[in-house]
Amino acid sequence: MPRYVDHDARRRHIAATAAELVGTRGLEALTFRNVAEAAGSSTTVLTHYFTDKRDLLLSTFEAVAERSGARFDEVQRQGGGLRECLEALLPLDPGRQTEWRLLTCYWGMAVSDPNLARAQARHVRSAQRRIEALLRQHYGQVAGTEPEVVARRLVTLVHGLGAHSALDPDHWSPADQRRVLADELSSLGETGTMIG
Amino acid sequence: MPRYVDHDARRRHIAATAAELVGTRGLEALTFRNVAEAAGSSTTVLTHYFTDKRDLLLSTFEAVAERSGARFDEVQRQGGGLRECLEALLPLDPGRQTEWRLLTCYWGMAVSDPNLARAQARHVRSAQRRIEALLRQHYGQVAGTEPEVVARRLVTLVHGLGAHSALDPDHWSPADQRRVLADELSSLGETGTMIG
Repeated sequence: MPRYVDHDARRRHIAATAAELVGTRGLEALTFRNVAEAAGSSTTVLTHYFTDKRDLLLSTFEAVAERSGARFDEVQRQGGGLRECLEALLPLDPGRQTEWRLLTCYWGMAVSDPNLARAQARHVRSAQRRIEALLRQHYGQVAGTEPEVVARRLVTLVHGLGAHSALDPDHWSPADQRRVLADELSSLGETGTMIG
Repeated sequence: MPRYVDHDARRRHIAATAAELVGTRGLEALTFRNVAEAAGSSTTVLTHYFTDKRDLLLSTFEAVAERSGARFDEVQRQGGGLRECLEALLPLDPGRQTEWRLLTCYWGMAVSDPNLARAQARHVRSAQRRIEALLRQHYGQVAGTEPEVVARRLVTLVHGLGAHSALDPDHWSPADQRRVLADELSSLGETGTMIG
């Protein structure tokens, strides 16, 4: 009987390991050898899953981006409001700080690689749509402006906070990030309590 | 009589050339040879000004960051309000789009390089201070919140817009950026006209 291998789980495990590696040691550390070693695998196995380093980086990015979208959805499913859902995207704990270092590294690479940039564009647009859907469902018209524009504001603020925090964590601590987001959300509701 | 060389101007010229190069061709293109060629100089001359590639990247970043701060100050000096000053930081024309591609590349490198990250932190904190000073001078207390928090919101939004636009210019056109910023600023004033 052939041994069963869950290829999808294995690929995800490798991508998560690679995300951790890039988040802690930077893009320079993203080599097949390093990732194989950290994942308890071999470079030969890795080449079955990823054609080259860019493919490995892209898969790593997509793993992190999907995880962040899933967190947003899960918080919403559990009855969380806009503030809780957006906080699910921010680097408020060590694991998500590592993710945000990976995402910020990725942005840098994506600037000169249309393939990587397309994945980033999909990720931002999908986060924007999630936020917009939440606004339309629960908050109706916000302070006289279009949910589409408010969703753009919020996704931009959240991603800006993520990158700022990845690069200067002392000045953008979890408490600072929460304070900035709360202030932004209070500006949306007339009383500051409608949203958030 | 020795030939006069304006070293500062020469260094600035080389850094501007390097910024252009990275903005259009990505960080991979940042080599002493490429920069020397584009600047009409030689690699030997470049080594007088920059110790290594990281130093060249750091100087390039600082040239772009200082230029963006100077634009903000100039708009303010000419009587521009908060909206005009903040727009001076956004990638609203091809030259500044190139700058923002450089800045986004730089963020990616800075994640794993404390020296580069410190320069980025200085740049963000200084932009935040500029915005906060403007808020305190001209707008007093904004919608019941601290100018420090509002300045954090605005610098984060503007930098987020810059990076989003560098990575997905079709979805974050100059018109879209202006629309998002105008909406953000209208949320600050009670009538939407107090600021911006």
